[in-house]
Amino acid sequence: MADVLFPRMALIGIGLLGSSIALAAREHGVVEHIAVHTRSKDTLDRAEELGLGDSYHQDVTECVADADLVIVCTPVGVCETIAKTIAAHLKPGAVVTDVGSVKSSIVKQMAPHLPKHVHFIPGHPIAGTENSGPDAGFAELFIGRWCVLTPAEDVDKDAVAKLQAFWEALGSNVELMDAEHHDQVLAITSHLPHLIAYNIVGTAADLEMVRDSEVIKYSAGGFRDFTRLAASDPTMWRDVFLHNKEAALEMLGRFTEDLTALQRAIRWGDGDALFDLFSRTRSIRRSIIDAGQEIEAADFGRHINDAEGEVEKSQTRL
Amino acid sequence: MADVLFPRMALIGIGLLGSSIALAAREHGVVEHIAVHTRSKDTLDRAEELGLGDSYHQDVTECVADADLVIVCTPVGVCETIAKTIAAHLKPGAVVTDVGSVKSSIVKQMAPHLPKHVHFIPGHPIAGTENSGPDAGFAELFIGRWCVLTPAEDVDKDAVAKLQAFWEALGSNVELMDAEHHDQVLAITSHLPHLIAYNIVGTAADLEMVRDSEVIKYSAGGFRDFTRLAASDPTMWRDVFLHNKEAALEMLGRFTEDLTALQRAIRWGDGDALFDLFSRTRSIRRSIIDAGQEIEAADFGRHINDAEGEVEKSQTRL
Repeated sequence: MADVLFPRMALIGIGLLGSSIALAAREHGVVEHIAVHTRSKDTLDRAEELGLGDSYHQDVTECVADADLVIVCTPVGVCETIAKTIAAHLKPGAVVTDVGSVKSSIVKQMAPHLPKHVHFIPGHPIAGTENSGPDAGFAELFIGRWCVLTPAEDVDKDAVAKLQAFWEALGSNVELMDAEHHDQVLAITSHLPHLIAYNIVGTAADLEMVRDSEVIKYSAGGFRDFTRLAASDPTMWRDVFLHNKEAALEMLGRFTEDLTALQRAIRWGDGDALFDLFSRTRSIRRSIIDAGQEIEAADFGRHINDAEGEVEKSQTRL
Repeated sequence: MADVLFPRMALIGIGLLGSSIALAAREHGVVEHIAVHTRSKDTLDRAEELGLGDSYHQDVTECVADADLVIVCTPVGVCETIAKTIAAHLKPGAVVTDVGSVKSSIVKQMAPHLPKHVHFIPGHPIAGTENSGPDAGFAELFIGRWCVLTPAEDVDKDAVAKLQAFWEALGSNVELMDAEHHDQVLAITSHLPHLIAYNIVGTAADLEMVRDSEVIKYSAGGFRDFTRLAASDPTMWRDVFLHNKEAALEMLGRFTEDLTALQRAIRWGDGDALFDLFSRTRSIRRSIIDAGQEIEAADFGRHINDAEGEVEKSQTRL
């Protein structure tokens, strides 16, 4: 059990991230009181049924009152409104952070409205699943994952250290970087992959010569790997692309350029070009496994997890 | 234990597919003798060390002699040479099949060279992992997966039924279809996904503003999902694109067209267009899970399988 770092934590939004933070912070004893706000009455009631917090607030200003740590866990697009609404109600010395997948836009949206007497430290835990809502959360989500913090240069070092200790207590590794660099890194490691996944699933759904049922039946050929990302929360991802436009377009441009070269290699039967690319990408997965960011099991361990339990014997392979 | 369907089975090639067939056919008792051929002496020795077969042959004509079932488990590009080489040595009444990811090309490469007294039934088990070589095989690979057979119309129905029974004994569901339709279906469910995965991993590797180590570290944001397909066997995939060129280019054209529309939506901040696509793709994963072709566990069950065993507690979520 870690020390209490922030006696009162306010969570604005209680989806996958908010609920996971609630469960993890409780498990590790780093907060005493968890105040939960979300706009939807139904979702707030569900959060209460799940016992995620200690108090539940339809009014966000009540939720943040007296909080030592405020974490905005909403889609990126509503952060400016939230900053404006909560600004006058924040306790002096409070740490205000978020979990958004873009950071420059969060700074632009929130920093101008927040009072000087709080410590604003944008954050992004690089962890998630394709599920959303308060039922999707689990305490182990952050274990072994990276959490990026992008404080401005003049932010109080002790406040940053405390927020870092909070994420470390939840199991994360913390890295500090510039908001703009964060947005470039995430554009390639997260935003472009989601865009590509959404796009290929859409392309498949629109085909007229191949029936939908065939796409489903034969998805084990590779297609199904993309459907996980393409099942992610639509509102969250809409906001990511609206708020990290430049970096996303830049990465997309590079991707398309490379894909056009590959298309040309296929058209002209340039087997050497294909073989060269296909060989060079193989080692990257190994590096990700070695870095502890991916599991070793073949096929994402699907044969071990098979829901029907038909293939338990394959466990002996590990 | 099923009945013996083919007393002597010859496997030409002993990589992931060949070795999995060997293990599964043995386990289910559908063959008596397994003859193994592969060009590389080292691989053949390894297959013997692993006990995958009953006899091991550097000479492919010896391997197929007297075989009741011959399965070509090599990259697609060498099938014509194999057909020419084995033709004169095939036993009358033998079933000759393959496991290649393209089918029209296999028919063009092999059919003209095979004698009239054998039953040629091209096949494609839609199952695999990112690993390759004789050590990668496991008997459960085919359980619950589809196997497509594409016999010509004049092929003996009893021979087709027997090959179907063979794959069903190994755990597969069998579907018969036209070779050309197979190539279209697989172009979207398998070939395009692999091409896209190889491409995005290549694009990431080439970036100059984001370091490789950052791509690895923050891959849990989505990128890592693509690296599984991009770790697949380069020779096999080179041959797929060289031998299913038209269908692959057609699907790639549609994908690029859709991606360009998505790029435009991002550039012009068209949130509704983004939200519409991102919503519509969500249900497809559900259908794939319901069809038994994907596991239910969030995040491919990675939290359950975590190699460090740090997160066993998350198992209670299932």
